[in-house]
Amino acid sequence: MNTYTYEEISIGHKESFRVIVTEADRDKFREITGDINPLHNDIEYAKSMGHERCVAFGMLTASYLSTLAGVYLPGRNSLIQKTEVNFRKPVYVGDELTITGEVTDKSDTFNVITVKVEIINQDNVKVCKGKMEIAVQKEG
Amino acid sequence: MNTYTYEEISIGHKESFRVIVTEADRDKFREITGDINPLHNDIEYAKSMGHERCVAFGMLTASYLSTLAGVYLPGRNSLIQKTEVNFRKPVYVGDELTITGEVTDKSDTFNVITVKVEIINQDNVKVCKGKMEIAVQKEG
Repeated sequence: MNTYTYEEISIGHKESFRVIVTEADRDKFREITGDINPLHNDIEYAKSMGHERCVAFGMLTASYLSTLAGVYLPGRNSLIQKTEVNFRKPVYVGDELTITGEVTDKSDTFNVITVKVEIINQDNVKVCKGKMEIAVQKEG
Repeated sequence: MNTYTYEEISIGHKESFRVIVTEADRDKFREITGDINPLHNDIEYAKSMGHERCVAFGMLTASYLSTLAGVYLPGRNSLIQKTEVNFRKPVYVGDELTITGEVTDKSDTFNVITVKVEIINQDNVKVCKGKMEIAVQKEG
């Protein structure tokens, strides 16, 4: 886990990591949220809506922003204040995603960094883009 | 699960549901995301940062937007296009949250509804506010 302080982070700083969206992840996300929408686990329904496979929950893809902030950028001292996520293309169970964050702004008054987020799949298709504002806390 | 069509939804339409954020939910979210930040499971660290209990992942609270769209508003025909979430106060493991969505706009060209989201805890404190744009699909 990274432990960047506010001062150690510059505009342009990038961090990246990869995940594979597994069936187990999809099932755990449904258990947490109670979102039983059939698009995510009924292949016949997913096909009737124009998909070859079950679509992963959009907010499951968004949940990797938690990891981006809490483990990578800034890591340990992270406190997310705001997120924006645009879902551009479907993510399917089995996809391998690369999540990248880049610092685009710093607010010295509140020790808040702005991070632009891009998520691409194994075919280099941008499935998701977003933005976070993250307070970088001082350890107590 | 609701099955509202685009035509059945009016501006002002509200849906609401409750969840309790359990330790099991917190643990499953960590397993899915790999977000091992100690704020969420190390009580001593959480206390050193000014909290009485472990803080739930912000993006775990945000994940209930999946349920709001996919089960309640519009339900089955939901496809989330965009989300914005502002985290205003910490959510702790054990909190009971009420998630409320209200339709504030409709875009007839793309069958997209705009939903304002509020999440309050058991003490009536607004912990989170947000916005979603959700396409209401026609069944194939």
